[in-house]
Amino acid sequence: MQLRDYIREIEDFPIEGILYRDITPLLQDAAAFRAALSRMGEFCERVRPDAIASVESRGFIFAAPLAQSLAKPLVPIRKAGKLPYATHTVTYTLEYGADSLEVHTDAFAGGQRVVIVDDLLATGGTLAAAGELVETAGASVAGVTVLIELAELGGRDRLRNYETYSIIEY
Amino acid sequence: MQLRDYIREIEDFPIEGILYRDITPLLQDAAAFRAALSRMGEFCERVRPDAIASVESRGFIFAAPLAQSLAKPLVPIRKAGKLPYATHTVTYTLEYGADSLEVHTDAFAGGQRVVIVDDLLATGGTLAAAGELVETAGASVAGVTVLIELAELGGRDRLRNYETYSIIEY
Repeated sequence: MQLRDYIREIEDFPIEGILYRDITPLLQDAAAFRAALSRMGEFCERVRPDAIASVESRGFIFAAPLAQSLAKPLVPIRKAGKLPYATHTVTYTLEYGADSLEVHTDAFAGGQRVVIVDDLLATGGTLAAAGELVETAGASVAGVTVLIELAELGGRDRLRNYETYSIIEY
Repeated sequence: MQLRDYIREIEDFPIEGILYRDITPLLQDAAAFRAALSRMGEFCERVRPDAIASVESRGFIFAAPLAQSLAKPLVPIRKAGKLPYATHTVTYTLEYGADSLEVHTDAFAGGQRVVIVDDLLATGGTLAAAGELVETAGASVAGVTVLIELAELGGRDRLRNYETYSIIEY
């Protein structure tokens, strides 16, 4: 099964000049979605995380079934103001402006090894911030796994301290 | 296992006077999360959906593993402007103002029966809008399932055309 056959290209989304990779055809095919999760699962079995963390919202789509298949805790990382309990926050710069991510202060037991899951690795800004947040919360990053990596944007360089596994590379 | 033991109460979130039900302790306990998914799965086996649809972002946490365990398509319903392909849109009123949800026009094969999944049934506005969207897209709603129902808010009345199953009721 060629998983990239289930990724649809959309021109000029969200803005002109951007070729967007749409994952919804993959999600609509249960076997293709299963194959993607299975490859993420093989990566996790190698790096042996104690918990799976994920950045909202598309990251949740991969992280939740992965955490369940590994029987590991699922920890949501969310945009600022969404998590109700005490949080750690990290602010990171975007092309225009800045954004913040949060995780609950009791999200991880001390020293836990965490795999961070997302659908896409582009410039790596969000995933680098998520990694910083995991470390701030007293855990360590065992690895990062994504469905799609846009290699030309160099996101892997920003994650060079972490083992990073992508399933489809453009 | 008492699943409500894994729901944390947070006072005055997101605004004063609101008692927020925090699901993160449940997500961090793989067995509790599995038990919740298993009950949603039993509901689905009874109403026999062809596809699972879900509203971002916390709905994805339950819908994705559920769709995989049932080997059914997963269809994301998102806030306006997030889905890249042609969409159907429904606008619904909130306490202050309005919000829009979208689904891709090719999300469902004609006549598919769909279960809509979310973490919370409060006033039912979002889930009623999701149901309308599923119907606009040419499918039908086989049922609605949520982790938590805030019964006093009467959301079930707004969903009275749909069979609705909640796991924890307050």
